[in-house]
Parts: sequence; C-alpha cells; structure tokens
Amino acid sequence: MKLPEKITLVEVGLRDGLQNEPVRVGTQKKLELLKDIVGAGFRAVEVGSFVRPDKVPQMADTGELLRRAAGTVPADVELRALIPNRRGLEDAAASGCKSIKIGVSASRIHNQRNYNRLPEESISAFESIFEDAAKAGISVIGTVQMAFGSPWEGGIPPEQIESIVRVYDRCRIEKVGLGDTASMATPRTVYRRCSELRERFPHIRFKAHFHNARGLGLSNVLAAMGAGLTEFDGAFAGLGGCPFVPNAAGNISTEDLLNLCDELGIETGIDIDKVMRIGHKVERIVGHAGNSFVLRAGTVQNLIDRISAAGK
Amino acid sequence: MKLPEKITLVEVGLRDGLQNEPVRVGTQKKLELLKDIVGAGFRAVEVGSFVRPDKVPQMADTGELLRRAAGTVPADVELRALIPNRRGLEDAAASGCKSIKIGVSASRIHNQRNYNRLPEESISAFESIFEDAAKAGISVIGTVQMAFGSPWEGGIPPEQIESIVRVYDRCRIEKVGLGDTASMATPRTVYRRCSELRERFPHIRFKAHFHNARGLGLSNVLAAMGAGLTEFDGAFAGLGGCPFVPNAAGNISTEDLLNLCDELGIETGIDIDKVMRIGHKVERIVGHAGNSFVLRAGTVQNLIDRISAAGK
Repeated sequence: MKLPEKITLVEVGLRDGLQNEPVRVGTQKKLELLKDIVGAGFRAVEVGSFVRPDKVPQMADTGELLRRAAGTVPADVELRALIPNRRGLEDAAASGCKSIKIGVSASRIHNQRNYNRLPEESISAFESIFEDAAKAGISVIGTVQMAFGSPWEGGIPPEQIESIVRVYDRCRIEKVGLGDTASMATPRTVYRRCSELRERFPHIRFKAHFHNARGLGLSNVLAAMGAGLTEFDGAFAGLGGCPFVPNAAGNISTEDLLNLCDELGIETGIDIDKVMRIGHKVERIVGHAGNSFVLRAGTVQNLIDRISAAGK
Repeated sequence: MKLPEKITLVEVGLRDGLQNEPVRVGTQKKLELLKDIVGAGFRAVEVGSFVRPDKVPQMADTGELLRRAAGTVPADVELRALIPNRRGLEDAAASGCKSIKIGVSASRIHNQRNYNRLPEESISAFESIFEDAAKAGISVIGTVQMAFGSPWEGGIPPEQIESIVRVYDRCRIEKVGLGDTASMATPRTVYRRCSELRERFPHIRFKAHFHNARGLGLSNVLAAMGAGLTEFDGAFAGLGGCPFVPNAAGNISTEDLLNLCDELGIETGIDIDKVMRIGHKVERIVGHAGNSFVLRAGTVQNLIDRISAAGK
C-alpha cells in the first residue's frame, strides 16, 4: 500500500458545501467559520465563488468575505475562490483574492449545457484570463470536471482530459484539479487516470475532488494517493450535493477524510477535535445533519477515551 | 491494484441487520425477504441466531424460519445461523441447519465481559461442539471478533488472533471470519493482518465482516481483497448498529458493496436491481432509512438511464 507521508487537505465547505443550502449563511458567520477552519490548521480554504448572485445567492458575499478575512487570516493561508469568467477574475482581484480556480468539463455535452460552448472553446476563452491573473499576481488552479466519467458519455477518453490539461500546461498553470462531478469514479479508474496524467504531465501537480454519492469517496482518495496525489478537497459535515441526484450524499466529509489520514499516520497539520466541532457547528447553522460518519460515531480515540472513562 | 475475479457476498441482514431493530419482523416477512435474497442470486445467507429469546427477541424464530425455508430455498443455498453454545448447536441441528457460525473475541476484556470467560476458555469449551457438529454433518465457520482492534486494548497483537485460529485449525475448521466489531479497522491494518494470517494458515479460507461506523468499510474490503480474501458480509440497507456507539452506522450496506464489485468487474452472481428492491422493502419494514449510499443515489447505470430517458 503506497501512501504519502503528508497531504494537503483543503476545506471547501464554505463554497461547495454551503452553495446549495437553502438557509442563507451571513458573512459574519462565514467569517467565524473561516477563523475556526484556519484555527484547526488548514492552510488552504476555498471560501466562495464569483458567480452571478441571482444564480447562487449564497455566494454573493464572496468578495466581502475575502476583504474582511484579509485582516484576520494569516498571510500564509491560501484563500481560494472559484471564478467562471473574466468578470469573476476582476471581482476576485478587487477583493484581494490571490488564488482562483477555474474549470472546464471533460464532458463535451456537460460543458455545452453548463457553459453553452465546447470544452476547447471554454479553455481558449480562458487563456487571456490566465495571462491577466499572472500579471496581477493571482495564482490559478485549473480544474477538469467529470474527469472520471460523465452521465452523458459514460467513460471519458484520456485524450479528452489531456487536451484540456495541455492548455493549462501551456499557460504555465502548475496545479490541476480533477473533479468527480457526477460521483462516477471508482478506485480503479482513479488510479489509472491519475497515474497516466502524472506520467504525461510530470511537472503538473494534480489534486482531486471527489463526491461521495455511492460511498466510494474515501476509497477513491486512497487510490489517488496510491497514484501519487497529495492534495484533496473535503467539505465540513459532508455537505454539498450531487448535481444529478437530489438526495445523494455530497462532497467527501472533511471529518471522515481527516480521520482516515490520522488513522493511517498521514500528516495534515489539522486537529480533528477542532474539525469535529466545526462540523457540528455547521450542522446547527444549516439546520440538518450532513453526510459525515465521524461526526456521528466519533473517532476511535473518542471511543477508547469514553470506555476508559466509564471504567467498563 | 490486486483484485479478485470473483467473490462471495453473504447477506447477513436477516441476522445482524434486524437483530437490534425495535420493530418485530414476523417469520412470514423474513421468509419473503429470504426468498427475495435467494432470488437476487445470493448463495450464502445468514438467517438468524440461536440465542436466548429474552435477550434478542427478534431472533426467537430462527428455528422456525429455517424449517419453513427448507421447503422453498434451493439446496445449494447455504443458510447460516450463529450459535453461542452447545444448546445453540442442538437447536440448529433440530431445525435442519447445515451451517453454523461460532465466535470468540480477540479482546480478552471483551470476551470476559460478553461471555464471562477468557478467549482460550471460550474456545476450548467449543472444541467438543465442533466435533459434534461434524458428526451431525453441520459445517462450522469460526469467527474472531475485534480482529482489527478493541476499544479496551487498542491494537490486538497478532498472537492473540493466531492462538484462536490455531484452535480452529486443529479442529479442522476450514473457514474463519474476521470481524471488525468496534469499527476500528483501517485499510492498512486489514491488509497487514489478513496477509499475515493467510501466510500463517494457508489452508484456511478467511472471510471478513466489516462495520462502517467511520465510513471505512468499503476501503477495508478493498484492502482485504488485496490481501486475497474473497468472502464478505453485507447487510441490506446497511442496517445493524455498532455495539459501542448508539448512533453510528452499522454493517457495510450490501447495496454499496455489490455496487463496488459491479463497478470493478468483480463477479458475484447477484443482481443489483433486485438487491436495491430488497433494500427499499427492508427500509419500509423497519420504518426508517438505513445507511446505504446506493439506495439513495442509485447506481451509475440508473443515472445514465435517467439522463438518457429525459433526453437532456
């Protein structure tokens, strides 16, 4: 079992976890959560997205959140925001954002339906954005949605991913995220795809974002680790949905992913007790339980402590 | 990634899934579920246990269920029952049961608290039961509870497991189940323990029974497969609890485990659409949702079919 010594765990709950929650979470509450997250040890946090406020009202205060965070969050913490277009880059720059994520779908049909253009059209429209971001000192993470399968096409041929990554590469983007948007990845496809991509683009750092609709999220993380990936997204309380199945589980839960790392001795720099307090707080804020096993069961250490305290 | 071509998936929901459910499920309903289970393709089903009816009332009709099943379930289907002692063997024999499971805990403290004796005392008391079962033509599966850790002792040293397996081996028991009773297993401990045991006892077939309190059940199955195991338990709808944490998830869900096998091309002989119908039926019978991802989200094929039918 090949496992890394250390990984970067990115909390994306403020963006992907909250964006579809019906309860509106105010900027002050988000800021408090962000402080808790940073206090737990995260050094990369996805805080929001610069999308149309009428489409995703929960994300409307992303600029405000970033501006207010600047005063309190240490400078070595990377605060990321998702942007869909040039307007998003301008908004990000205006709020002092230093790290943006931008995405293309590997599924031609998905990209057309979502963005009304083909993947290659999307990505060539991004090229000038990449240049301007670089000039403004903003780092860019390129992402590939549906990187492990699409409900329209089924499997996605490697060339369809590679043609996107090649553009990122040419634009000197050093980090590329692979998203399992429809929760179709399996440990086998993950291992194969990640290994092939790393071999083909050895100077690019790939990261992964798994959904958990079919309960394979953590197994997919292990497969990606086996293929050499060392950066993964998680969402507090396992919030966030599957865009295609209303009742399905969302992102991998940060608590479960961190617990896996702790149990395997993989260093993250993050404190699980603090993370669990955040998870419980988030569940109170959104008013319902998410999809986190560890928030329900506690860690093994919690169990051992409880049994020892009870003296039974 | 080393994976088997084929595995045996055992439905244990009628026993481990139902035993702690407050709703009493009648024998006729259990018989119907058993027929559905066999109809879905399972060739090994754990139907109940011969324990004290005042302790586990849900299992009180195990003998009756086995007698009634004899007329309808094909002879090549193995119907298993758990027995705790000699009395259990007599009851099993009287109901025509041909396959029993008997267990010892690898945790000395757990075994003492549960059975009021040390593991070595438990297992030597079993030796004459094994002999009598063999004479009666009843096959025995020996199990080891807490095989991957105990909330009292933490890790369980290999010798503690091996001393139990040695007795099973001496008594010509060919199949030994390893149970993650407190949901403490990790893919690393599973891989290591299963590999070591297989090497030390090459003529014993080991099987595994994982709980899913911390969401690692499927990852642990993959690790056990990597170590050469090819028989796993699952419970319909992911029912069954963790004996130590009231709200935690129970057994691995049969639907999720089967979906994993289907997605990886591992043959089981079991039809997932039928299995999902059983899972939904069981949730209606017990009156609440279990812990199954695939019952909520459907399979990838369901998603592809739905998107294709909607023409979107």
